Amino acid sequence: MTEPSASDLTLDEKASLTSGADFWTTKAIDRIGLPSIMMTDGPHGLRKQAGGTDHLGLSSSVPATCFPPAVGIGSTFDPQIIERVGAAIGIEAAIEDVAVVLGPGINIKRSPLCGRNFEYFSEDPMVSGILGAASVRGVQSQGVGTSLKHFAANNQEFDRMRASSDIDPRPLHEIYLRGFERVVTEAQPWTVMCSYNRINGVYASEDPWLLTRVLRDDWGFDGLVVSDWGAVNDRVAGVAAGLDLEMPSSGGRTDAQLVAAVRAGELSESVLDTAADRAIDLVRKAAQRPPVEGPLDVEAHHELAREAAGRSIVLLKNDGDLLPLGPGMRIAVIGAFATEPRFQGAGSSLINPTRVDRALDELRAVAGDAVSYAAGFGVEGGAIAASGRTAEDLRDEAVATASTADVAVVFLGLPAAEESEGFDREHIDLPAAQLAVLDAVIEANPATVVVLSNGGVVALPFADRVPAILETWLLGQAGGGAVADVLFGTVNPSGKLTETVPVRLEDNPSFGNFPGEFGHVRYGEGVLVGYRWYDAKGLDVTFPFGHGLSYTTFSYGDAEVSTTADGDLTVTVDVTNTGSRDGREIVQVYAAPVTSAVQRAPRELKAFSSVAIAAGQTVSVELVVPRADLAYWDVRVDRWIVEPGAYRVEVAASSRDIRSSVIVEVEGDAVVLPLTMASSIGDVVAHPVAGPIVMEALGGLMGGLSGADSSAASMMPNDEAMEKMMASFPIGRLIGFPGVDVTYEQIEQLLDGANAQLASQT
Amino acid sequence: MTEPSASDLTLDEKASLTSGADFWTTKAIDRIGLPSIMMTDGPHGLRKQAGGTDHLGLSSSVPATCFPPAVGIGSTFDPQIIERVGAAIGIEAAIEDVAVVLGPGINIKRSPLCGRNFEYFSEDPMVSGILGAASVRGVQSQGVGTSLKHFAANNQEFDRMRASSDIDPRPLHEIYLRGFERVVTEAQPWTVMCSYNRINGVYASEDPWLLTRVLRDDWGFDGLVVSDWGAVNDRVAGVAAGLDLEMPSSGGRTDAQLVAAVRAGELSESVLDTAADRAIDLVRKAAQRPPVEGPLDVEAHHELAREAAGRSIVLLKNDGDLLPLGPGMRIAVIGAFATEPRFQGAGSSLINPTRVDRALDELRAVAGDAVSYAAGFGVEGGAIAASGRTAEDLRDEAVATASTADVAVVFLGLPAAEESEGFDREHIDLPAAQLAVLDAVIEANPATVVVLSNGGVVALPFADRVPAILETWLLGQAGGGAVADVLFGTVNPSGKLTETVPVRLEDNPSFGNFPGEFGHVRYGEGVLVGYRWYDAKGLDVTFPFGHGLSYTTFSYGDAEVSTTADGDLTVTVDVTNTGSRDGREIVQVYAAPVTSAVQRAPRELKAFSSVAIAAGQTVSVELVVPRADLAYWDVRVDRWIVEPGAYRVEVAASSRDIRSSVIVEVEGDAVVLPLTMASSIGDVVAHPVAGPIVMEALGGLMGGLSGADSSAASMMPNDEAMEKMMASFPIGRLIGFPGVDVTYEQIEQLLDGANAQLASQT
Repeated sequence: MTEPSASDLTLDEKASLTSGADFWTTKAIDRIGLPSIMMTDGPHGLRKQAGGTDHLGLSSSVPATCFPPAVGIGSTFDPQIIERVGAAIGIEAAIEDVAVVLGPGINIKRSPLCGRNFEYFSEDPMVSGILGAASVRGVQSQGVGTSLKHFAANNQEFDRMRASSDIDPRPLHEIYLRGFERVVTEAQPWTVMCSYNRINGVYASEDPWLLTRVLRDDWGFDGLVVSDWGAVNDRVAGVAAGLDLEMPSSGGRTDAQLVAAVRAGELSESVLDTAADRAIDLVRKAAQRPPVEGPLDVEAHHELAREAAGRSIVLLKNDGDLLPLGPGMRIAVIGAFATEPRFQGAGSSLINPTRVDRALDELRAVAGDAVSYAAGFGVEGGAIAASGRTAEDLRDEAVATASTADVAVVFLGLPAAEESEGFDREHIDLPAAQLAVLDAVIEANPATVVVLSNGGVVALPFADRVPAILETWLLGQAGGGAVADVLFGTVNPSGKLTETVPVRLEDNPSFGNFPGEFGHVRYGEGVLVGYRWYDAKGLDVTFPFGHGLSYTTFSYGDAEVSTTADGDLTVTVDVTNTGSRDGREIVQVYAAPVTSAVQRAPRELKAFSSVAIAAGQTVSVELVVPRADLAYWDVRVDRWIVEPGAYRVEVAASSRDIRSSVIVEVEGDAVVLPLTMASSIGDVVAHPVAGPIVMEALGGLMGGLSGADSSAASMMPNDEAMEKMMASFPIGRLIGFPGVDVTYEQIEQLLDGANAQLASQT
Repeated sequence: MTEPSASDLTLDEKASLTSGADFWTTKAIDRIGLPSIMMTDGPHGLRKQAGGTDHLGLSSSVPATCFPPAVGIGSTFDPQIIERVGAAIGIEAAIEDVAVVLGPGINIKRSPLCGRNFEYFSEDPMVSGILGAASVRGVQSQGVGTSLKHFAANNQEFDRMRASSDIDPRPLHEIYLRGFERVVTEAQPWTVMCSYNRINGVYASEDPWLLTRVLRDDWGFDGLVVSDWGAVNDRVAGVAAGLDLEMPSSGGRTDAQLVAAVRAGELSESVLDTAADRAIDLVRKAAQRPPVEGPLDVEAHHELAREAAGRSIVLLKNDGDLLPLGPGMRIAVIGAFATEPRFQGAGSSLINPTRVDRALDELRAVAGDAVSYAAGFGVEGGAIAASGRTAEDLRDEAVATASTADVAVVFLGLPAAEESEGFDREHIDLPAAQLAVLDAVIEANPATVVVLSNGGVVALPFADRVPAILETWLLGQAGGGAVADVLFGTVNPSGKLTETVPVRLEDNPSFGNFPGEFGHVRYGEGVLVGYRWYDAKGLDVTFPFGHGLSYTTFSYGDAEVSTTADGDLTVTVDVTNTGSRDGREIVQVYAAPVTSAVQRAPRELKAFSSVAIAAGQTVSVELVVPRADLAYWDVRVDRWIVEPGAYRVEVAASSRDIRSSVIVEVEGDAVVLPLTMASSIGDVVAHPVAGPIVMEALGGLMGGLSGADSSAASMMPNDEAMEKMMASFPIGRLIGFPGVDVTYEQIEQLLDGANAQLASQT
C-alpha cells in the first residue's frame, strides 16, 4: 500500500486535517488508515494531562521528570547536556505515546519583565539557536517530534494575543529570527509553532512572509506549522499563509470556513492539499517511532536532572573562596526556599514532577547536625501565614541562627506568583521582606552566601555586600541536590550568564518601550538588545553576559585567528586550569567590525565552548566563526551581507572579561547598486563603476560648488564642510543651484550610461 | 479692479506660479499685474545676497544685524524679547524689500549631534512652539512674512534630503508636530516650509497627510507651503499633496510636468488653481506692507542685539558668588574666542553682520589695564598656525597670565568647522587642546570662570572643577558686549537651559538610532525625548533642562492650582527675590498624570514665564495650563485625549528643582469603543456599557476558568495570576478552551447586542 496523501482525500477530509480533534490531538481518518497523534506541552519535561485526551486539556498531568527549565540549563552553554536531557524527555514522551513535545521555546529575553523568560534561553540569538537546536536533536533522537516556538518575536506576555511587535528589518532578522533560523537549518524540528502576537501589524498565524517566505523559502523548513493554542485569527488567511494545523479544535467551525473558501474560489485547493499533506507527513513520522520499553526509569532521569541542574548553577561571586563549604563548618540555612523550592515556572510548562528534592534535606544528608535552619520569611512574602509568626519573629530567628554558625547560606527567590506564563512582571526586585532578612543576616554573620531561585533576572542591590552568590535560576525537581553538590564542591560550578544582570530595570534597552500600549510594542532599541546595548552605551552592569566563576581558575593564552579557504575564522586558544580542582570553562568568542556603515554592537557572541579541563592541565580550544555569522541584514538588498574590512575578534571569559583581541581582515560581500537620481553625490563618488564616469562627465561641478572662491562656499566654514554637505545632496536635486550648468535630462543620460556599463560588468 | 485670482490665468500661467523665477524670487505675471516677491534666508537676521536676484543665490549677502540664533535667544524663555527681535528683523527685511524671511526653525533637538541645532530652540515642543510663535508675530508685525520650518521631523543633517524619519504616531504628534501646531494656530505664519526628509517613508514635499490633512484640515493653516530649497522629489505628487511653491526655479521643467499632468487628467486643475491662488495671496499680502523709512538704524539694532544676547546667557554655576567680577579685580582673559568670537553658525543662516563685538575689547572698555590676555589656543584647534606658536607655548603663556590675576576667565568653544548646516557632529567634546589649557589654568588659578561659545550642547567634564560657568551659546554680533555686561553684573543673567546638558553622548535617547542608516532613522525613544528620557530613566545629567542661575536668589511660595470652568488649570505661586539685585526668574510648570494607560514622561513642561522681580520684592505669578495641553495622542481614535484622574502639577525652577507639587483631579475625555471578537476579556470587563452585559451573559465562564478547583487553575500560581492571564485573552479565541461552553456565534450575538446598547446610549 502506498503512503496516504491529500490526493486520496475529500475536500472535507483535507480541511479536517488542518485543525485538532480536541485540545491535544489531531484528527484521525480511518478510511485511509490515518491515526490521530497527540501533542503535549514541554519544554523541560512532559506535561501530559492525566485523564487522556478529553477536552479539559489543562487538568493535572501525569508525573514526569522536571528537568531544569531553559533559564537554568541555558547557563551550561553546552549543547551536549541539553541534547541528553532532550533525549530523556523524548523517552518519557515515547512511553506516554506522545508524538510531539511542544518546545523548545527560544524567544529572545528582550526585557527582564517578560513573565515567560524562564522558558527561554538567552538575550542572545546565537545562544538561543545553538541550545535550541540541541534540544530539538535530543528529543527527536527518540523518534518524537518537537515544536520550535514561539515563532516569532513573542517577547512578552502582556497582551500577547494581539500586540504587534513593531520591529525594523535588521533587529527582526539579526536578533529575533536568527535563533529560529539556526534551529530550523541545523536541527529540522518536525513542527514550528506560530506565536500569538502580530509582527509589524500582521498576526504570526496568518503572515505569509513569516510562515512561507522566511521559514520555508529562505530557511528550507519542510515540516508542519502549528498554531499556538488559540492563535488563529482568520483561518483561511492562515492556511494561505502557511499555517498548516490549528490547535485546539475549533469544533468544526474553521474547517467549514476552509471548505467554503475553496468552493468560493477564495482559497486554492492546492494550498489545502499542502497543509493536509504536511499533517499526514507528521503522523507518518510519528508512526515510525521505534518501540520503547516502559515504565519510566524515574531514578535514572532524576539523576540526569540533578546532573543538569548542577551544571546550570552560576557562581556569580566567591570572595575569599568562601565556597565550597568546608567539612566541619556550622552552616546556617536561612530562607523558606530551602524547604519549599521554586524549581519551575507557572503556566503551560508546569510539570507534575516525579519527586522534588529540597536543599535543606540534601545539605543535612551531607552535613547532618552541622546544618541549622530558619525560614526567615515565607516564600510568598514576609510572614508565614499558616504558622502565625510575624515577619519580625522570622527575622529574629534567622539572625539568631546565622550568628551562631560559621557560614550563613540564605536562599532568596521570586515568589511563584510573580512570574508565570500569561502576564509580565512589573519590577525586578526581590521582595523587601527577603532583602530585610538578608541585611540582618549579613550584619550578624558577614560570611554569607546567597542562593537565588528566580526564573527572570532580579536586581542584586546586595551584590557588593555579600562575599558569595549562587544564581541557581530554576533548576527542576533535582535542584535541591544540585545546590548541595555545588555548595559542598562535589560539583564545581561552571554555568555562565546567558543574560545580563543589570543594575536597574531602567537600564534595560526596552525600558520605555515595554510592554507597549494599545496593541503595539515598538522595539525601539533595534539591534542593541541585551549586552549589545549595555556595551554600546557603556553602562555599568551588576554581572555581565557570559559571566560565571568556578572553584578553580583558568588562564588564557594568546588567541590565534586564521581564515579558511571559505573565509571562516578559526580561533585557537590555550586555556589552562591553574587551580587545584577539575573544572569547566565556557570559552567565548566575540566579534565585530572595527568600523561599519550601520549601527552594530561593540561585540556579538560568535562562538562558545564548554570545555572540561583537569586541574593543572591545558587544553587547546578551537572555535570556528563561520564567515556568514559576521553578516548583518542589509535592508538595501534584503539579505545578509558581510562587510569587508577589519574585524575585532575577542576571546573572552565573559562579555566584559576579554582575554585576547585580534584584528583580522575579512573579505566582504559586494553591494553595488545602480545609480539613480536619488543617489547622493557621496553615493556617486563612492560608486566603484559608475562613479568615475559620472564625476568626470560632471566635470567642474563639484569644484564650482566647493572651491574657495565660490559663492556657496562663503556660507560654509571650509571646503571639507562644503564637501560633507554636498555629499548628501541627491544628484537629481542639483538643478537650479548655483554653479550647476547641466540639465536634469543630461544627468539622467549620464546615469543611464553608467548603469549600462555596470550591468555589462556584473 | 478686482483682486487677481487663478481663474484669470491660463494653465501655463497657473503652473508657472508654483515654482520660483530664480533662486530667491517668485514669478511675476505682468498681464494681470502680479509682481514678483523675494524670499531670503533667516532666521536670526537677514541673509539677502548682495548682487540682487541673479541665479548665484549663495553669494555674500548685504550687511544685516546678526541677532542671537535660536539656541541663544531660546534661553530667555521669553516671547516678548523674541517678538521684539523678530520685529527688528522684519524692519530690516522691509528696508531691503524682502517679502518673506525664511524662519523661524523650530525642529526638536533630538540629538545634540544635529549640525543645525543652533538654529532651533529646544528639545521641548512647548518651548519651541511658544518661542517660534513669538518670532512669527514679531516679523509679521512689520508686514513681512515668515516661513515656519522645517516641516517636519527634520532633526539631523546627515542624509537630510533622503532619510526617512521613522516615527510612531505618538512621538510624531506629541513631540515633533506639536510645536508646529502651536505656531500655526497661534501666529498664522504666512508660509510653512516643508522639509527635505521623508516621514515614515514619504517625502515631506509630497505628503498629503502632512501638508493637507494635518496642516490645513486639522490646524487650519491657510497660507502657502513652500519647499525647502531643492526638496521637491515628484512635483506633480507635491502639488497634489499641498506643496504650493517649489524653490528654487526648476527652469520650467516641473511647470511643464504640471501642465502635462493636468492635460493627461492625472492632476485636477482645481488643485493647481488652489496652489496658484495661494501664491497670488502671498504676493497680495506682501504688497500690503506699510512703507518703511530707510536706512537701517544700525546702532539701535546692535543695541537690541546686545540686550537680547545678555538675556540669552545661562549662568550654569557660580560657586562662592565668584561672579560678577568685582571692581579692581585683575582679570586674566584666556582663550582665542575672546578675540575671535563664534557668534553664529554656518550654512544658509550665516549673516553678514553690520559689526562684531569682541569680548576682550568690551572687558577692557570697562576694566582697562586690569585685563590681561592670552590666546591659550587657536579657535580651530591647538596651535595658532599663523603665529607659529606651538600649543605648549600658548598653554604656558595662559598659565602665566592666569597665575598673576585674581580671576581667570577662560573662553572655550566649538570650532566653527564642527557645527554647520549640512552635516552633523560626531561627538560632543570640546577640543582636547582647549580642555588641556583649562586644566592648566585651573591649577594655576582656581578662581576660574568658563565662558562657553557653542551652538550645540557640549560635554562639560570640568563642571565639578571650576567654580563658575557661563553658557553663552551663540550670541550674535553683540555677544562680546553682552558677555562683558554679565561678567561685570551690569546685566544679571537670567537665561535657562532649553536643552539638557548630558554627562555623556551615550546617555542621549537617540544614541544607537542616530543618524540612521540606508535612508531610515528610527526614532526608537518614542516620546521620551530630552529631559523626558533623562527623568524616565533616572539618569544623572550635568545640568538639567530648565536650569539657570542668577546673581540674586529666588524663593518660591507654595503653589496653588485651581481649575476653570473649561477645565484649564490656573497655577499661582509667589516668587520672592531674596537677594540684593534685581533679577529675572523663569518660573516653570510641569505636569503629568500620576498613572497612565500609556508611556508618559515623569513630567512635561506645560507653562513658563520669565518674570522680572526687583530685589526684595515678591511677585504673584500666574500660569495657565490649558486642559488640552494635558492630552496625549491616542492611536485608537487618532486624536488628542485627556486621561481622567490625578495629575501631578509641579512648579519648578528647573526640571530637577521642583519647588511645589500639587495633585489635581482632571476630568478626562471618554474613549468608549465598540467591543469586537478581538476585545480581550480585560477589555470586556472594563467596558462601561457592554462589559456588564457580556460578562453576565457569559455567566460562570470566568469562574469556571479561574476557580481554585478548575483544571486551568492548576497550572497557575493563584487566582489573581489566572485572572491576569485571562484578561489578555481575546474573547473570540476562547472557543475550544476548557470550561468554555459557548459558541463563536453566541459570543458574536452577545457583542452585537451590547454594542447596539452602547450606540443607543451615545
